[in-house]
Amino acid sequence: MKITLKSPLDMHLHLRDDEMLKTVAPLSSNSFCGALVMPNLVPPVTDKDMVKSYKGRIIEAIGSDCFEPYMTLFFQDSYTRAFLEQVRDDILAVKLYPAGITTNSEGGVAALDVETLRPTLQIMSDLKIPLCIHGESNGFVMDREQEFMPIYEALAQSFPELSIVMEHITTAAAVAMLDRYDNIYATITLHHLLITLDDVAGGMLKPHLFCKPIAKRYEDREALLHVALNAHPKVMFGSDSAPHPQHKKEACGCAAGVFTAPIALPVLAELFANHGLLDNLQSFVSNNAMNIYNITPPVTELVLEDTPMHVPEKYNTVIPMYAGEQIGWSIRK
Amino acid sequence: MKITLKSPLDMHLHLRDDEMLKTVAPLSSNSFCGALVMPNLVPPVTDKDMVKSYKGRIIEAIGSDCFEPYMTLFFQDSYTRAFLEQVRDDILAVKLYPAGITTNSEGGVAALDVETLRPTLQIMSDLKIPLCIHGESNGFVMDREQEFMPIYEALAQSFPELSIVMEHITTAAAVAMLDRYDNIYATITLHHLLITLDDVAGGMLKPHLFCKPIAKRYEDREALLHVALNAHPKVMFGSDSAPHPQHKKEACGCAAGVFTAPIALPVLAELFANHGLLDNLQSFVSNNAMNIYNITPPVTELVLEDTPMHVPEKYNTVIPMYAGEQIGWSIRK
Repeated sequence: MKITLKSPLDMHLHLRDDEMLKTVAPLSSNSFCGALVMPNLVPPVTDKDMVKSYKGRIIEAIGSDCFEPYMTLFFQDSYTRAFLEQVRDDILAVKLYPAGITTNSEGGVAALDVETLRPTLQIMSDLKIPLCIHGESNGFVMDREQEFMPIYEALAQSFPELSIVMEHITTAAAVAMLDRYDNIYATITLHHLLITLDDVAGGMLKPHLFCKPIAKRYEDREALLHVALNAHPKVMFGSDSAPHPQHKKEACGCAAGVFTAPIALPVLAELFANHGLLDNLQSFVSNNAMNIYNITPPVTELVLEDTPMHVPEKYNTVIPMYAGEQIGWSIRK
Repeated sequence: MKITLKSPLDMHLHLRDDEMLKTVAPLSSNSFCGALVMPNLVPPVTDKDMVKSYKGRIIEAIGSDCFEPYMTLFFQDSYTRAFLEQVRDDILAVKLYPAGITTNSEGGVAALDVETLRPTLQIMSDLKIPLCIHGESNGFVMDREQEFMPIYEALAQSFPELSIVMEHITTAAAVAMLDRYDNIYATITLHHLLITLDDVAGGMLKPHLFCKPIAKRYEDREALLHVALNAHPKVMFGSDSAPHPQHKKEACGCAAGVFTAPIALPVLAELFANHGLLDNLQSFVSNNAMNIYNITPPVTELVLEDTPMHVPEKYNTVIPMYAGEQIGWSIRK
C-alpha cells in the first residue's frame, strides 16, 4: 500500500535555534513542504526583525526552497495597530501562551481576561491575523485544557471574525468546541492520537512521551481520533514536535515535549491505513490547513508506503518517538 | 518545638536485598524501631526458609537489636493450611499483589476473584494472619485504586474475621472504606500526604516522585491528610520507601518508587506541627499499628525537633525525596 501526499504541512512546530535548529529543521523539511513555526525562543519572537532573522536562520538550516517556514509572533497585549500592520506580511499567526504554561512561555499572558486582551485582538481581527492559543489553565494537570474552554468560548463570541486555533488539543471537551463556533479551529499532534496518560505514567514513567498538554484519557483520545481520521475540515495536523537534548529529558526534572518530526508522516499513514481511512490523510495534513489559513505552500510530493522503517536511537542529542523501534510505514526515497 | 516518639514503626517498607539492602536498611533503623518488610524480591519471598534467611540478612545489614523486621509472605493461592500454620510465627502478614501491578509483582494474582482466593483467605482468617493488598486494577492509571474498591468490599464482606490492610492508599474513595467495614485498615505514605499528580507531571516531569499508585488529585490528598493528621485509629504510617539506583530513575523508562526512609519522620513531624496536630503523630506512626497488628515492638525513643536538616543529594546510588534541599525538622543526634 502507498499514498502520495501533496504539499504536507505541519501547522505546529518547534524548531528552536542554533545547533538544535540545524539538527531538526532538515528532519521536518524532509517530510513537509512547510510548517507553522512557534515563537517561544529565549527571548521570544516579538518584533519584525526577530521574525525575519529567525526565518532567515531556518531557511539557512534547511538549505532548500521547497519548505516554507510560516512564522508566528509571541502574543503580547502591548502590540499596536501600527506594529501589527507593519509585521502582517511576515507572519501567518500570533501565538498566545498563558504565562509559564510550557517551555519558554514565561513572558506569556498572566491574566487571560478578554477585556485586557480586547484592543490587541480587535486589531488582529481587523487585520485577519489568526490567533493560535496554548489553551491550558494553571489548574490540576489533567483538568487544564478543559478548564480553558470558557476562555475559548468568550474569545469566539467576542471576536466572531477572528480565527482562533486551539493548539494541540487533547480532550473531548476541546473537540466539542469545533462544531459550536464557526471561528474555532484546532491542531492535533501525532502523539495525542496514539498515547494516553497510561503510556506516560501507567507502567514505567516515560520521559520521552511527557508533553504539554499531558496525554489524557482513552475517551479523549477516541474523540481526537474521530475528527482526525475523518479529516474534520476544522482540524489540521500540527506535530508540536519539540526537541530537547537527551540530558534534559532523562533527568531529575524532565522537560516537556515529544520529538516526532522525522516519523510523523509514516506513522500517520500507518494509523490512517489501519483504520481504512488513508484517503483522508491528505486533508488532515494539508488541504484543511490551506483552507483555514488561506495559504498556497510550495508544491511538493511525498510518497509513503507500507515498507517498515527502523527509527534511529537518536538524531544527534535528540531521542525521537519510537527510538530504536520499527514502524510499519516509511518515506519512499 | 520538639517531640519524643516512642517506638516509631514503618508498616510498609521495601528493603530490597544485597548491596541495596546494606545501603537502605540502616537508614530505616536510624529512625524506626521496626518495619513491615515487603516480600517482592526476585524471586518473591514465598516460603519459610526464604522468610528466615531474608530476615537474617536484614538483621545483619542493620547490626542492631533495636529494630524488628516484621516479615511478609508474597501471597499465592496455592498456600495450604499446613504451610501457613508452619510459617505463621515467622511472618506478620501476607502481601497480595495483582500480577504485574508494580515493581517485581509479576508472580502476583492474575484474577482477583474471591472464589479463587477463598480457600487461602479462609485459612488466613482462621489463623488470624492479616492480608495486605496492593489495591489497584489494571485500568487507567488515575482510576486504578478507585476501581479496586469493589474487590476490597467483596473481601471484607466474605471474610469478616480477616484483617485487610489497604496498602499505600491514595484516594478519597479508599479513605471512605475505613468507616464502612470493621475489618479494613490502611497504610498511608509520606509522599501521598505531600504531593499530587501536579508535582509529578504538572511542571517538569519528576521521576523521583513517580510511584505506584501514582499521586492523585488535591481532593484525594485532602482526604488522606484528614485521617492521617487526626490519627484515625485504622490508619498507620507505611512509607512505601522504595529505593532504585539513580540510573533506573533518570532513564528512558523510570522505575516506580519514592525513597523517603531517611527523612520520613522529620518531614511528618513538620507536617503535623504545621497543622497544630503534633500530638497525633505518636498514634499515626506507632500506636495504631501496635493495636491493629497486636505487636509489641522494641522500645525506642526518637527525638524530633524543628532544627533544619540538609537532605543529602544521594545515599550511595539512591536519590531521596528532597535531595539537596533543606527540611524544617531533624532527628536529634
